[in-house]
Amino acid sequence: MSSVNRQIVLASRPQGEVTPDNFRLIETPLAPLAEGQVRVRHHLLSLDPYMRGRMNDTKSYAPPQQLGEVMIGGTAGEVVESRNDHFQLGDRVVGMGGWQEYQTVDARDRGALRKVDTTHIPLSAYLGAVGMPGVTAWYGLVRIIAPKAGETVVVSAASGAVGSAVGQLAKARGCRVVGVAGGAEKCRYVTDELGFDACVDYKQHADLKALSGALKAACPDGIDGHFENVGGLVLDAVLLRANAFSRVALCGMISGYNGEPIPLQFPQLMLTNRMKVQGFIVSEHMDVWPEALQDLGGLVAAGQLKYRETIAQGLAAAPDAFIGLLKGRNFGKQLVQLI
Amino acid sequence: MSSVNRQIVLASRPQGEVTPDNFRLIETPLAPLAEGQVRVRHHLLSLDPYMRGRMNDTKSYAPPQQLGEVMIGGTAGEVVESRNDHFQLGDRVVGMGGWQEYQTVDARDRGALRKVDTTHIPLSAYLGAVGMPGVTAWYGLVRIIAPKAGETVVVSAASGAVGSAVGQLAKARGCRVVGVAGGAEKCRYVTDELGFDACVDYKQHADLKALSGALKAACPDGIDGHFENVGGLVLDAVLLRANAFSRVALCGMISGYNGEPIPLQFPQLMLTNRMKVQGFIVSEHMDVWPEALQDLGGLVAAGQLKYRETIAQGLAAAPDAFIGLLKGRNFGKQLVQLI
Repeated sequence: MSSVNRQIVLASRPQGEVTPDNFRLIETPLAPLAEGQVRVRHHLLSLDPYMRGRMNDTKSYAPPQQLGEVMIGGTAGEVVESRNDHFQLGDRVVGMGGWQEYQTVDARDRGALRKVDTTHIPLSAYLGAVGMPGVTAWYGLVRIIAPKAGETVVVSAASGAVGSAVGQLAKARGCRVVGVAGGAEKCRYVTDELGFDACVDYKQHADLKALSGALKAACPDGIDGHFENVGGLVLDAVLLRANAFSRVALCGMISGYNGEPIPLQFPQLMLTNRMKVQGFIVSEHMDVWPEALQDLGGLVAAGQLKYRETIAQGLAAAPDAFIGLLKGRNFGKQLVQLI
Repeated sequence: MSSVNRQIVLASRPQGEVTPDNFRLIETPLAPLAEGQVRVRHHLLSLDPYMRGRMNDTKSYAPPQQLGEVMIGGTAGEVVESRNDHFQLGDRVVGMGGWQEYQTVDARDRGALRKVDTTHIPLSAYLGAVGMPGVTAWYGLVRIIAPKAGETVVVSAASGAVGSAVGQLAKARGCRVVGVAGGAEKCRYVTDELGFDACVDYKQHADLKALSGALKAACPDGIDGHFENVGGLVLDAVLLRANAFSRVALCGMISGYNGEPIPLQFPQLMLTNRMKVQGFIVSEHMDVWPEALQDLGGLVAAGQLKYRETIAQGLAAAPDAFIGLLKGRNFGKQLVQLI
C-alpha cells in the first residue's frame, strides 16, 4: 500500500471564472491510524456545482473552503485499513473524503462513513442518483414542489445529476415534465432516454423572449412546479409562464457563481401568481435521507431511474473536469475515477 | 331618500401614474328593489393599493376592472331598503359596494353583505384593522412568516392599514419589530404610538447601500421575517440582511404598480439563505377570516390594536385620495366618508 497520499488543495480563490491555477496537487505522507480510524482508498470523487460556492470567501450557506486545504467533496471507495470494529477491509463506503486518493477518518463520528451495498447498485451511483444529488432532487421535488399528477414541472440543467432525477421522479408522479438543457444532444437524451415530455435547448433561445416563448410551447398549460439549478435567464423565463400557486425549489443558481449579476427581472410575478419560492440545502434535511435513499435505490436497482456519468481519469484531471462541469461540458453526473 | 346614485367609474386605464381623468363621476337612477335585494347607503369607502393593479388591463391575480364600470372596493354603510328577511333598516353592513353612494345587492348571495356590530368597534375599523387589511396582515404574518418569539420581523409601509397591524401582531407574539416608512412623522408614529422597536425612514436612505445599512442597524440580529407591501429597493435591502431560513410574505409591490422595472438584484440570496418567499391574496384564504377577525376584533375592542385613518370627504374626493394613497400621502388607513 502506498505510504503517500496525493491531494488537491485550494491554492487561490477564483477571480470570476475558476482556472486550473486555483488548485494545487500535493503529496503528503500517510500516518499510522489511531484507534477508531479507518483508511479509505477512494475509487471515485464526486464533482458538484456547489463546490464553486465554497471556493469564494463570501457568506453563504456553508463556510468557505479554506486556502491550502483539501478540496471538499463526496467520495466513494474501499476500506484498506481499519482500527474500527464496524469497518472491515474491502467494505465499500461513501463519505466526504474530498479531492484526494486516501481518506483517513475517525469512523466513530456519526455519518462520517456509510457502508453501501454494490450488489444491485453500482458504487458510482452512491455519488449520484442514490446519493446527495438524488436526495437533492427528491427533497426539492417531493417536499417543496410537491407536484400533483397532471401538473407541469420544469427543471433546469435537466441532463445533470440532479435534474435528470427530478424529471424522472416527477414523471413517476404523473406530471408533464419539461427540461431545460444546453444543446441538442442533451435535450435528445432528456426526452428520448429519460422520458421527459419535452426539453428546451437554452442555447437556441438566448434571450428572455425566445426562452419564455419556447417554454410556452413546451408547457401549454403553464408551469406548476420548477426546480432551479441555474437561475438567471431561465428563472426569469419560468416566472413568465408560472401558474397561480406554482412552487419553485431553488437548488442552485450556477449562472451567478462567477459573480455575474443575475437580477430577477419581474419579482412581482411571485406575488401576482401567489407563488412559493424556496431555497434549500439538502444537507440540512438529513431526516429525509433514509426515505429518499430507499426510494431512489429501489428505482435505480429496478432500472427505473436512469442516469449518465462523465468520468475523468486520475486525480490530476479533477480541476479540468470541475471547470468543465461549471461550463456545462459534462453530460450527467461528473465523477473522477482514481482506480 | 335619493332616487339617484352617484358613482365613480373607470374612464380610462392609466399610462404610468394614475391621473384624475382616469375616473369619471356619473349619476344613475336607483331602480326599485327586486326580491332578496338590499340597498345600502355607503357611509365609508375603502381605498386600497390593490385597486391600482385592477386598473391595468394585464394578467394578474384578479380580472381587471372593466372600463365604464364602478370602481371596485370595500364599503361600509347602513341598510336603507330591504326585500330580504335577514337585513333590516338601520343594520350596519360591510360589503364590496365600490365607489358609489348606494349599493344594491342580492343579499342572498353568500358573502355579499356582512352585518357588523358597532357597539365596541367603530364602523370604519371594519374596513381596516377588523377588515380586509387586518386579515391580510394576520394571514401573511401568522400563516406565512409564522414568527417565533425573539425573532426579528420587518414590515414595509409600516404606518399603513396593513403594515401597522402586522407590526402590532408581531409585537404581541414577542418579536422585535422594525418598520419601514416614508418620513419622520410616520416613523415616529410607528415607534411611539404603535410600539415598534424601530422604524427606518426610506426617504432618508435612498439607495441600496444606505437602506440596507439602516436595516442592519435596526436589526442587529438580522431579519427572520419580512412582510412586503412595497417591493423594489426595500426588498433588495431586506434580502441583504435576511437570516438563514427567513420567510417573506409578499403582499404588495406598490413600487412597481406604475410599470416601473423593479428587478430583484440578488435573487441568489433566497437560495443561500434558504428563504421561503411566498405571495398571497387574502381573498383566496376565506377559511382564516373567522379566526383572524375574531382575533383582530378582540384586540381593537380592547384598545390593543391601534390604527390611524386618513378620511377624505365626499365621493368626488375619492380619485385624489386614491392618487395620494399611491404616493404615500395618506397616513394609516385611507377612507372616503360619504355621510
